[in-house]
Amino acid sequence: MERNIDMLIRHHGLKDKIVSAEEAASWIKDGMTLGLSGFTRAGDAKAVPMALVEKSKHDPLKVNVYTGASLGADIDKIMSEANIINKRMPFQADAAMRSKINKGDMYFVDQHLSHCAEWIRTNVWEPIDFAIVEALSISEDGMIIPTTSVGNSSIFVENAKAVIIELNTTQPLALEGLHDIYEAGPQGNRNPIPITKVSDRIGTIGIPVDPDKIKGIVISNIPDSPSTIVPPDEETQTMANHLMDFLRLEIKAGRLGNNLPPLQSGVGSVANAVMHGLLESEFTDLEVYSEVLQDAMFDLIDAGKIKFASGCSMTLSEEKLNQVYPNLEKYRDKLVLRPQEISNHPEVIRRLGLISINTALEVDIYGNVNSTHVLGTKMMNGIGGSGDFARNSRIAIFVTKSVAKHGAISSIVPFVSHVDHTEHDVDVIVTEQGYADLRGLAPKERVLKIIENCAHPMYKEQLREYYEEALKKGGQTPHVLEKAFSWHTNFAEKGTMLQEIKQHS
Amino acid sequence: MERNIDMLIRHHGLKDKIVSAEEAASWIKDGMTLGLSGFTRAGDAKAVPMALVEKSKHDPLKVNVYTGASLGADIDKIMSEANIINKRMPFQADAAMRSKINKGDMYFVDQHLSHCAEWIRTNVWEPIDFAIVEALSISEDGMIIPTTSVGNSSIFVENAKAVIIELNTTQPLALEGLHDIYEAGPQGNRNPIPITKVSDRIGTIGIPVDPDKIKGIVISNIPDSPSTIVPPDEETQTMANHLMDFLRLEIKAGRLGNNLPPLQSGVGSVANAVMHGLLESEFTDLEVYSEVLQDAMFDLIDAGKIKFASGCSMTLSEEKLNQVYPNLEKYRDKLVLRPQEISNHPEVIRRLGLISINTALEVDIYGNVNSTHVLGTKMMNGIGGSGDFARNSRIAIFVTKSVAKHGAISSIVPFVSHVDHTEHDVDVIVTEQGYADLRGLAPKERVLKIIENCAHPMYKEQLREYYEEALKKGGQTPHVLEKAFSWHTNFAEKGTMLQEIKQHS
Repeated sequence: MERNIDMLIRHHGLKDKIVSAEEAASWIKDGMTLGLSGFTRAGDAKAVPMALVEKSKHDPLKVNVYTGASLGADIDKIMSEANIINKRMPFQADAAMRSKINKGDMYFVDQHLSHCAEWIRTNVWEPIDFAIVEALSISEDGMIIPTTSVGNSSIFVENAKAVIIELNTTQPLALEGLHDIYEAGPQGNRNPIPITKVSDRIGTIGIPVDPDKIKGIVISNIPDSPSTIVPPDEETQTMANHLMDFLRLEIKAGRLGNNLPPLQSGVGSVANAVMHGLLESEFTDLEVYSEVLQDAMFDLIDAGKIKFASGCSMTLSEEKLNQVYPNLEKYRDKLVLRPQEISNHPEVIRRLGLISINTALEVDIYGNVNSTHVLGTKMMNGIGGSGDFARNSRIAIFVTKSVAKHGAISSIVPFVSHVDHTEHDVDVIVTEQGYADLRGLAPKERVLKIIENCAHPMYKEQLREYYEEALKKGGQTPHVLEKAFSWHTNFAEKGTMLQEIKQHS
Repeated sequence: MERNIDMLIRHHGLKDKIVSAEEAASWIKDGMTLGLSGFTRAGDAKAVPMALVEKSKHDPLKVNVYTGASLGADIDKIMSEANIINKRMPFQADAAMRSKINKGDMYFVDQHLSHCAEWIRTNVWEPIDFAIVEALSISEDGMIIPTTSVGNSSIFVENAKAVIIELNTTQPLALEGLHDIYEAGPQGNRNPIPITKVSDRIGTIGIPVDPDKIKGIVISNIPDSPSTIVPPDEETQTMANHLMDFLRLEIKAGRLGNNLPPLQSGVGSVANAVMHGLLESEFTDLEVYSEVLQDAMFDLIDAGKIKFASGCSMTLSEEKLNQVYPNLEKYRDKLVLRPQEISNHPEVIRRLGLISINTALEVDIYGNVNSTHVLGTKMMNGIGGSGDFARNSRIAIFVTKSVAKHGAISSIVPFVSHVDHTEHDVDVIVTEQGYADLRGLAPKERVLKIIENCAHPMYKEQLREYYEEALKKGGQTPHVLEKAFSWHTNFAEKGTMLQEIKQHS
């Protein structure tokens, strides 16, 4: 799609900053720190990182790479395979990069997504040499209009020594006006964030930037990668039903009104499928205050179920994207994209009283959740925003299938091999087996609910046996520490968590 | 001290509600839920719980007991010894109660202190039959004027079916005016909390209550229990010095200004001692936004070091209390006591950008913190407000001596036996050995800092050995799961975490 450059760069005096991606990449030196736009495959800087990888082949270098969250267009893959990354923050979801991280070839700092901006603002992370952000256009007053994500772009731009803009001509111009950029300001000299409703707009439609800081503008035509979520299956549909049963009981008990609080849903297939389950439900007038707006959100908007959705990125499958992009006008008054500091801010999450739905990797019998580490050691993707939401939501729900690898792994274990969400922050567990409402329960009250309602039948007896043995040792949270990780070591040795069940004496 | 009853009950028509503690206790039936005032031995309801324990001797019953935090006057001790508690929330610090909890004789729900009010407001916890709150007086317009703590008293009073007031004649009348009671309101229909400075007053000086809900007023003369913190010792002084070295380096690096952000300090001897260390320092114009105001805070006020302190309770040693009480006037413009929902609210903590200092029970080599469970199973006191502060502070510092039980226990272990604060929330570890600044570091970068800077020399080699073995297995967070808890099991079996060091091959 050819676009008139005057439409893309409306600010006078910036057009002469257009450079090739290769030239922009040539400015990047060994040891520098880059802040790349991009959140869950949406709105990521693409051309310059690709050119940087090419350059590195004859001019080896290492850089620190900060992003909003995961990148698309194989950027994380090619950067990690080219070994150009020293340290990556705060989230990734790429198999090649994961492998490099777990081999120890690069550092990965796994951080709450709402905290990144504070780390940058207070100069705790390495200072950013170049913010490289994808944009739809540059406005008359010099604001950078983001594309499909805001993520950390605004804090990168504000704090970087220099800015490179990738004007992406494949992104629909109708995205302009969807964003709401707000800078919280320094701690200790900051006002309350004035959001009291999901739909509140509190900032500007673009990222303010000192034009002198813009070192180059690159024209790009590389589209966002479509999302890779898999469609709902029978088990995720069952999980969605359990979740809705829980919500119905809350309404019946008078703990929730008929209009649900705003919903948040984590990234990924399971959370997406669970949201999708609301389509056929009686729930209407839904509101969403989340980070990523996935397919299910747009299906729910199309069905007239969601009246407003706030996020920091939109990541759609190819099919959904082809439906949404030509009709963006119709979503205009129902969507807003904010910086991830604001979409994930504890202040707003607590004030609005969200119901949050996030994916667990494993859960233990007392309700602690591992979201990040396979067998306690290998990084999967990162905690992302799950901690931002779970800690401060009105109801923090975690969803997981009860087993993985055809039953060789139980998602319910005696002791999670890594803790991302403590017992203090986990309210409800949902698996395809059922749900466990843990709110207001002491650890020993939680155990049986989790085992009986959520564990897979093939693991229930084994879990009961562990708990019964632990119970003999006493304590607030009984454990047999010698055996706490035996399920994981069993899997590592024998390829299954299933143990031979001993007879009760 | 005799006081004119008209001074204590200034509201007309409430004087005829005066009853004996025994009569008030007679209203409490088996299965009821009580909300008792009291936060860290300060401002706790005393006479009615004592009468209830007496009554239970001939009329056995079980009740749920919610409080602000720990109680004084042996109330938790006598209630648990009388076996009258079914479930206790959200914090305790009594040896007898701890024993009952760990034996499984009562349930204990260990919760973030700022979250209690939300649980009560949303009817997730059992509804409160009686709020029993200590008061200084009842104002002309019927407000309950609290004494030395606010804690959860205001949310208890608002949500209880009925209210019993204990007018405590031993508390100094000059406490009136120190409190600032603010009700956040229901989630989803709530304004920002308008605190932008530590000293902001945003509410009323007493707890509003419908006079019809007041079922009885009991006159009490049982004083608060003095705090039991032990004075600073050489090791805590060393820890305070390390902490100040860290702060000085932050200032030198330009990451902090000369005026420190507001400080929070956890309950207990170590945190108190560390605050005490500021007395001899160059730091001035300090502000405190904390939960409990302990001796050190008042020493710092007396020394002109602290210009304002906000908390939700004041808990002093007998000696300090005798200095402070006769001179309350002099502290009037330097103190405020808020509900614990507000003193510990993530919204305010994040906005003000606190430096928080809390005590760890054990820390692992990757920076996860256990604040609650001895050997992973036995409850100590509870997480208290440490999670509220650590997650949202600008800098979350945890302090612990590097060894306990004369070296038999290392506070730095391969894998903490319970996780209350995850690697995502722990910024700086301080022991008497030194400090480890973990901010912006990947797990493998953290390990050596923690081992080399914080562990006791007698455990360093053993820690290095574990890590080296783990490192061979790879991963983002290398572990030898088979041996992760071997230090704890070794202690349980042999009374020490010290193992025989094998020769390196």
